[in-house]
Amino acid sequence: MDYISRFRVEPGSQVDLSKIDASFKDQHESHQHALPEIETYRQQLADLQYLMYAENKRSLLICLQGRDAAGKDGTIKHVLGAMNPQGCKVAAFKVPTREEAAHDFLWRYHRATPAKGEVAIFNRSHYEDVLVVRVHNLVPQDVWSQRYAHINHFEQQLADSGTHILKFYLHIDADEQLARFKQRIDDPARHWKISDSDYSERPLWDEYTTAFEAALSQCSTPHAPWFIIPSNHKWFRNLAISRIVSETLSALDMKFPAPTVNINEIRKKYHQIEKGESPS
Amino acid sequence: MDYISRFRVEPGSQVDLSKIDASFKDQHESHQHALPEIETYRQQLADLQYLMYAENKRSLLICLQGRDAAGKDGTIKHVLGAMNPQGCKVAAFKVPTREEAAHDFLWRYHRATPAKGEVAIFNRSHYEDVLVVRVHNLVPQDVWSQRYAHINHFEQQLADSGTHILKFYLHIDADEQLARFKQRIDDPARHWKISDSDYSERPLWDEYTTAFEAALSQCSTPHAPWFIIPSNHKWFRNLAISRIVSETLSALDMKFPAPTVNINEIRKKYHQIEKGESPS
Repeated sequence: MDYISRFRVEPGSQVDLSKIDASFKDQHESHQHALPEIETYRQQLADLQYLMYAENKRSLLICLQGRDAAGKDGTIKHVLGAMNPQGCKVAAFKVPTREEAAHDFLWRYHRATPAKGEVAIFNRSHYEDVLVVRVHNLVPQDVWSQRYAHINHFEQQLADSGTHILKFYLHIDADEQLARFKQRIDDPARHWKISDSDYSERPLWDEYTTAFEAALSQCSTPHAPWFIIPSNHKWFRNLAISRIVSETLSALDMKFPAPTVNINEIRKKYHQIEKGESPS
Repeated sequence: MDYISRFRVEPGSQVDLSKIDASFKDQHESHQHALPEIETYRQQLADLQYLMYAENKRSLLICLQGRDAAGKDGTIKHVLGAMNPQGCKVAAFKVPTREEAAHDFLWRYHRATPAKGEVAIFNRSHYEDVLVVRVHNLVPQDVWSQRYAHINHFEQQLADSGTHILKFYLHIDADEQLARFKQRIDDPARHWKISDSDYSERPLWDEYTTAFEAALSQCSTPHAPWFIIPSNHKWFRNLAISRIVSETLSALDMKFPAPTVNINEIRKKYHQIEKGESPS
């Protein structure tokens, strides 16, 4: 099955999250069963990122969104951690700083986009400004409702400049979220990660669903598609994302750049050095 | 053997690189033999970095220096790649941009230092300004000769603010460098990495040695020690660096922070949610 077309939100379609099975795991029985495939894609990711870094012509922007405990941090650790930290950077977006808040909403995200040859991972992204901001009415409706178009234009401009964009919505259901919150409670080493928002946002589940569906429906474009990844099973999420990123990079048909120097000349110079002559 | 005291440059001592065996490999016979130990330290590194990130109280700055082909990129990939890219960033310093050159020499490095909880890796560092700059007379002697003191003060200030600093000089000898250059020539996939400087800097070997020895001697301090890592064997370099970083972080005795919320209260709320009641 082609995961890119299987999980991509068709541009122009209306997303209904209630119709999407968050526990989907394809033909895999278990994590154990999927492990060799995950490892293959992780290795491919590492190789392709190196090639992108060497080629130095284009870049990759990966946006991760999802409800609390959907697995954004875990995806970074287990999937994107396969990449070389040189050439790969993670930007996590929290409550805006005073300087950030003093600018237009896209300013802080634009600063964090990848340079040529780089991969940037957004842990939360510019979509926060039509998600938490919309749900909590942090700006008036006439402001946030314009932002979908602003986001599409922003992403179009990045894409036209050689940035490939992949956006992943990590789809978990309410039961799975509660189970994960409870796991945190039962593990003292994870108590520091617990915040009041873990339960204070739960009553807003449906409002978030509406906001996610709007973002997924209005902002999945050919140049910056959204993927809805069934994420109740962490290992399936890792498999699907590593496979989609890997296949996307593979299709770019990247090449190592041609040498900038005359290889034969250099070979000759090394022979001279070996013989103790000073290179001409 | 204690690698931290074995490879650290004693503050105030005079370094003579010709007296240090670049092929040292301790009691290990081979890469194969050292692999389990390397893997243990890589795993420790990953755990300790997570703890530093969670603790969010201090940071780690790792500086990598060495001649061309000494293995800076390889160290990042094989050792520091074990860390989670979230909370770990790499800064590579090349020829200064126009904006960078318009500032004092430390400006661009200071911008790249790690925030609390973060690890930053400098691939080349502020020491370039007393290495390549000194060897090629890019600034007058009275300017570069002041910089050792400026660097020590800069690092002291970072250390006083909670940044732990480890600086590694990757020590290879001239034969090993030539062998690595020739490997690149024989591998078409690496031709893009070859530059004229690969051989044009070779005649300056002794001038670089003098510059490295000055930096290592004048700037190894208790708060920001230099380590000279025998690096003719790539695997021994990986072993030594992963062990030194790991043992340094281990000695900090970091702790997960206390929860910011009342865990029992939250547990009660989850029970209410499970029973379908709205949390109080």
